Amino acid sequence: MATFLNFSGFEMYFENVESGEDYALTPRFTHDGATPTEEMNGAGNLMDFLDEPFPDVGTYEDFHTIDWLREKSRDTDRHRKITSKSKESIWELIKSLLDAWSGWVVMLLIGLLSGTLAGVIDLAVDWMTDLKEGVCLSAFWYSHEQCCWTSNETTFDDRDKCPQWQKWAELMTGHAEGAGAYVLNYFLYILWALLFSFLAVSLVRVFAPYACGSGIPEIKTILSGFIIRGYLGKWTLLIKTVTLVLAVSSGLSLGKEGPLVHVACCCGNLFCSLFSKYSKNEGKRREVLSAAAAAGVSVAFGAPIGGVLFSLEEVSYYFPLKTLWRSFFAALVAAFTLRSINPFGNSRLVLFYVEYHTPWYMAELVPFILLGVFGGLWGTLFIRANIAWCRRRKTTQLGKYPVLEVIAVTGITAVLAYPNPYTRRSTSELISELFNDCGALESSQLCDYINNPNMSRPVDDIPDRPAGPGVYNALWQLALALVFKIVITIFTFGMKIPSGLFIPSMAVGAIAGRIVGIAVEQMAYHHHDWIIFKNWCRPGADCVTPGLYAMVGAAACLGGVTRMTVSLVVIMFELTGGLEYIVPLMAAAVTSKWVADAFGKEGIYESHIQLNGYPYLDVRDEFTHRTLATDVMRPRRSEPPLAVLTQDTTTVEDVETLIKDTDYNGFPVVVSRESERLIGFVQRRDLTLAIKNARQKQDGVVSSSVVYFTEDAPQLPASNPQPLKLRRILNLSPFTVTDHTPMETVVDIFRKLGLRQCLVTRSGRLLGIITKKDVLRHMAQMMNQDPESIMFN
Amino acid sequence: MATFLNFSGFEMYFENVESGEDYALTPRFTHDGATPTEEMNGAGNLMDFLDEPFPDVGTYEDFHTIDWLREKSRDTDRHRKITSKSKESIWELIKSLLDAWSGWVVMLLIGLLSGTLAGVIDLAVDWMTDLKEGVCLSAFWYSHEQCCWTSNETTFDDRDKCPQWQKWAELMTGHAEGAGAYVLNYFLYILWALLFSFLAVSLVRVFAPYACGSGIPEIKTILSGFIIRGYLGKWTLLIKTVTLVLAVSSGLSLGKEGPLVHVACCCGNLFCSLFSKYSKNEGKRREVLSAAAAAGVSVAFGAPIGGVLFSLEEVSYYFPLKTLWRSFFAALVAAFTLRSINPFGNSRLVLFYVEYHTPWYMAELVPFILLGVFGGLWGTLFIRANIAWCRRRKTTQLGKYPVLEVIAVTGITAVLAYPNPYTRRSTSELISELFNDCGALESSQLCDYINNPNMSRPVDDIPDRPAGPGVYNALWQLALALVFKIVITIFTFGMKIPSGLFIPSMAVGAIAGRIVGIAVEQMAYHHHDWIIFKNWCRPGADCVTPGLYAMVGAAACLGGVTRMTVSLVVIMFELTGGLEYIVPLMAAAVTSKWVADAFGKEGIYESHIQLNGYPYLDVRDEFTHRTLATDVMRPRRSEPPLAVLTQDTTTVEDVETLIKDTDYNGFPVVVSRESERLIGFVQRRDLTLAIKNARQKQDGVVSSSVVYFTEDAPQLPASNPQPLKLRRILNLSPFTVTDHTPMETVVDIFRKLGLRQCLVTRSGRLLGIITKKDVLRHMAQMMNQDPESIMFN
Repeated sequence: MATFLNFSGFEMYFENVESGEDYALTPRFTHDGATPTEEMNGAGNLMDFLDEPFPDVGTYEDFHTIDWLREKSRDTDRHRKITSKSKESIWELIKSLLDAWSGWVVMLLIGLLSGTLAGVIDLAVDWMTDLKEGVCLSAFWYSHEQCCWTSNETTFDDRDKCPQWQKWAELMTGHAEGAGAYVLNYFLYILWALLFSFLAVSLVRVFAPYACGSGIPEIKTILSGFIIRGYLGKWTLLIKTVTLVLAVSSGLSLGKEGPLVHVACCCGNLFCSLFSKYSKNEGKRREVLSAAAAAGVSVAFGAPIGGVLFSLEEVSYYFPLKTLWRSFFAALVAAFTLRSINPFGNSRLVLFYVEYHTPWYMAELVPFILLGVFGGLWGTLFIRANIAWCRRRKTTQLGKYPVLEVIAVTGITAVLAYPNPYTRRSTSELISELFNDCGALESSQLCDYINNPNMSRPVDDIPDRPAGPGVYNALWQLALALVFKIVITIFTFGMKIPSGLFIPSMAVGAIAGRIVGIAVEQMAYHHHDWIIFKNWCRPGADCVTPGLYAMVGAAACLGGVTRMTVSLVVIMFELTGGLEYIVPLMAAAVTSKWVADAFGKEGIYESHIQLNGYPYLDVRDEFTHRTLATDVMRPRRSEPPLAVLTQDTTTVEDVETLIKDTDYNGFPVVVSRESERLIGFVQRRDLTLAIKNARQKQDGVVSSSVVYFTEDAPQLPASNPQPLKLRRILNLSPFTVTDHTPMETVVDIFRKLGLRQCLVTRSGRLLGIITKKDVLRHMAQMMNQDPESIMFN
Repeated sequence: MATFLNFSGFEMYFENVESGEDYALTPRFTHDGATPTEEMNGAGNLMDFLDEPFPDVGTYEDFHTIDWLREKSRDTDRHRKITSKSKESIWELIKSLLDAWSGWVVMLLIGLLSGTLAGVIDLAVDWMTDLKEGVCLSAFWYSHEQCCWTSNETTFDDRDKCPQWQKWAELMTGHAEGAGAYVLNYFLYILWALLFSFLAVSLVRVFAPYACGSGIPEIKTILSGFIIRGYLGKWTLLIKTVTLVLAVSSGLSLGKEGPLVHVACCCGNLFCSLFSKYSKNEGKRREVLSAAAAAGVSVAFGAPIGGVLFSLEEVSYYFPLKTLWRSFFAALVAAFTLRSINPFGNSRLVLFYVEYHTPWYMAELVPFILLGVFGGLWGTLFIRANIAWCRRRKTTQLGKYPVLEVIAVTGITAVLAYPNPYTRRSTSELISELFNDCGALESSQLCDYINNPNMSRPVDDIPDRPAGPGVYNALWQLALALVFKIVITIFTFGMKIPSGLFIPSMAVGAIAGRIVGIAVEQMAYHHHDWIIFKNWCRPGADCVTPGLYAMVGAAACLGGVTRMTVSLVVIMFELTGGLEYIVPLMAAAVTSKWVADAFGKEGIYESHIQLNGYPYLDVRDEFTHRTLATDVMRPRRSEPPLAVLTQDTTTVEDVETLIKDTDYNGFPVVVSRESERLIGFVQRRDLTLAIKNARQKQDGVVSSSVVYFTEDAPQLPASNPQPLKLRRILNLSPFTVTDHTPMETVVDIFRKLGLRQCLVTRSGRLLGIITKKDVLRHMAQMMNQDPESIMFN
């Protein structure tokens, strides 16, 4: 069931989950172009069909690119057949209606399953994160919060203390305090972290290597039309879900958001296999996966609209309007499923619910923009350092010890994280606290302000107050946490465990933002006569909300790393639920994107795609060079001429030699070698299968048989063996451009039509071929030649 | 300045606003394909350039389709030139940076201007609508609300009564009450309405015929790549703004939302002319217009995200990610500009601010889905009836008296609307009241419930109560208003005044929804022991919110008419600001779309596009027929052969005859008539201009001169006159497909690449040509043959 292969320096193996599906050739789709013609032309063409269709024609090999036009054409054929059949009987009509509705059913199922999985993951992470510190005696499966929530002895002031919840030291030695207890707790914290991460990396290594990483670069590549078998398989789904819980619980600096997108896409792929409409058509399958990605983000943040826009902006390649609507449906179902599971216990859909009571002021745009600059710089630093480290991992001995690497990083993380209360807790709790406004009832260290005893204290509208010692203490700890998070995240992302970087990026930004926010707040309090504060911050007013700064910082850092724009702002807007704060968020996001773009156009996902050498043609790269098709096409001047087949003079042996000697994915068919007039294109895979099949089943087909692609058999001497007709595997409508076509147009055509290859002609004569890989190689070359040009796009 | 022409049975004229811009040919863009080659090939090609570039090459005639690929190519050339120049001097660098930023500047300007215009329109409409009933004595420019707001004598209970505000009858006769006063007020109401609408239609007729209608069908067509000069001109902007105020104030059943999109697009076009990057490139211009459409919806509803999605889903054709981000920026700037003008006086961004206090229950989905069915039926009825009426207007005498028609409809509307308080007020006020929940302080007739005197009354959470006589009275009036709105809207939309149908559609839905809501509420109150109510509606609880039903109904009806999906739900969500109600809205929107689609795929905008015969290739239509390129291409079998030019044997006279005898937009150029091998395509407009120019300026060019398209002049006898080289106007990379290409692929190519025409070849020989119009005609034919197939998409 599992074979290992080496793909771009990365150990992978297949689960043959998908190859079990049969892509049997039924007469309805033979080959785009061929079927309609032959059926339109009417009689006399039945001979064209081989007696038995041979399997696997029209499918793709692993690590190959799909042909979008062909997939679309096949789906239209299928749809046409169902529509015409539906008139025959009631049963067929019902079947056709079911087929029409299957898209919605798949969406519903994806929403339900990914919502449920997200809920289960949230609950499990909560419990296991707390397990590192202690256990609930009344019921060991309760997390700290649930334990004390159900206890009668919990007081409102000490919400997180109750006798049922015991730290490990207390349970084992009976002493809750003291150096001994601290050391024991510290030790057990590290031990649990190591155990979790060891389990995670082992499971990934043994059962599903594809379950590692965030998955978004690969999903982007798959959605752009690449085949990676097993990447979205059942096994990956299972292992990724389990190891994600383990990895997050181990306290590593990683998040669950990216992996949740991968999990949702696995769900999508799983449900595709229920309907032949989706399982047998790689193009339609990708429509479902785009919607699944939206559902993934929707449950990750509780932001359905943001999820749809994320899928549209960041992940998807082909996103027709129909998919927009279905994505929205899947995202909503997922969000509501998650809400009904209610893992956060607050009936809220969103991960970080915040509510601020004060508006923002124009002058605050300055610190917001500064946070944007910080976010852009962080994004650049992170991408460069992380890519350098990942390249090192791929090229040196380091990559051979993934388990050891994970153990080492977990060890370092746990040792450094425990002493600092802001890194000890889970990252999402940290972000949540940083986003929160200090209400009157807040007991955290960050809210240790000195209250004016004479002032009446309304619950909501608390004026700016001087910071107490707790706040200054927190500032130091936050500064240390910031440095720690920045460094450790660089080494964590890309290890062989599920790891997202939304949460770590947001944490970096939130810490920086909160620090800036407190600084501005204290400045405004102590110097409210300064000209910049005078206009909007009278003494006794609540002018500055440090939580808002944390949120703006989080948006800036996330934007710097991923280069998301609208989806980022919409996700953040859905977190707060107020249009009021869109302008600060947008200012920060725009600044961060501009700053980061000045140092390099690519976000972290594109960088990882490049690092892994995936054939991904980015929709956003603008190709602005003056090259022509003739400069890119193969063969080059120095190379041997193009390998072509002639329409009626090549023999079976010639074809077999050609297939053996070359590794091209397909061959153009011409009228004759002299005229070089193109009549079609034939896929290598189809050709191999057809000849193999003919040799086995068709009498009289020998090595010297002539292969012909014309309608009628060529006139041959009687002595010749029976010729082999292969017109039905010939694509009669290959895509052509002239040699004078500018490469920017060619790039545009490849991108928009999703081609695998394109033939180049001059005055009707075949000159050469351009494949998607040639285009990508050329783009990379041109980009390196002229790196400055990208700055002005 | 103004010439009249007849375009598809509709009187139009041009303002030559745009043709004043010079599209002078500068050497940087000559022709896609040609420039790069020639410059790449290096030396010896300087001769190719005519001494003086002739103007207008590369522009389009009015009512012609643009070539997206060519526009893109031209922009890349421009960009390349600026980038390479930027290295020469600091000044050029600054210029190139300015160029890079000009997109953002345009967005900012569009946001500011369209926000301001929307604010001014809102204020003016408020004032003029009230002017029909009375006047403010303290300051005549105050609307009713402002008048009483500034008065000291206004009490809280009678917010809309104050001595400063006097109805016309009171002012003129001194009597505020009585039959006489009523009749006088009635009469003056009709008079004002007639005056406003007469002014509106006259201004439209005399100054800017393009200012009529909603503008969205035309904007969709323009964005898809059609040229309608003056449609987005300054004059249209001015007249549409003024007449929109007049039309809305006249009390006709129309809204300002669609026209606001048109106004915003006019702003966009206006600011395009400031930057040659946008004014000289029809493709780039359309990117700006897409963003402007988003800004338009953003100010119409105060929904920036909804506006962006509306532009993406409904209006735009080519929507790259860069445009997404810029649209969002423009939409936000517009929304905040509008908010700072604050026309609604409530500091809210949105048109209808609502806040509900109770959740919805699963059982309520049944009435919500019923409202969806109603919305779908209304959509179908409206589209069919309206299109039938508009067709009648176009084809009969009716169309010749637009002023009379407007006057008549206004008269009927005013006569019927005045007696009913729900139709007398402005439609947006009506919707606002219908959406509102009945709070404790509500004094309207719709909130006339019988209160339980024993109950303490919290402000927010009022239990369901039995309806009082006012509610029953209101129900009757609403039912009459519903019938009236349904009928009159059909006749109003499409008249020669600015008219949107968002608001009338929403009004129809809101009325129906409110009626259903009250019915359900009363049922739940009186029969709370029924099985369907038992689980969620105990006596004394507040279970049903009739306002929510109104909102759901409004969404359903709007969805039925426009077939918006995600953008509709997002706009509605932005109106309420709560994710809670997305599911009811979505259920209604989905149902309404399905019901309406069952009767016909096209929304009102697509129907009007079809009615007017615009060449619009809808992205959403799926073409699933089995035809091939050979079935669609011209010439057909019975027709004369294709008009072609040869590369070096045609004379100037031949070309001129060909141009005179045919009206094709361009001609393929072949090696020779025998071989039929294609070398390029030449545009009719370029050919005409080039020959005219050569005849005037180039010595020796006479009728018998040979025209050649090759690199080198053909070998001619010495007696022949000087040949004319036209290679630089030859497109060396025309788009070709083979005759076996399925039409679905051809349609896809036309759609995605934005082609004007495509040549058809077989084995390298030129067979024919397919133009965008051929494609549209063929699609329409196939659709009529097999109307059922559309149901299963």
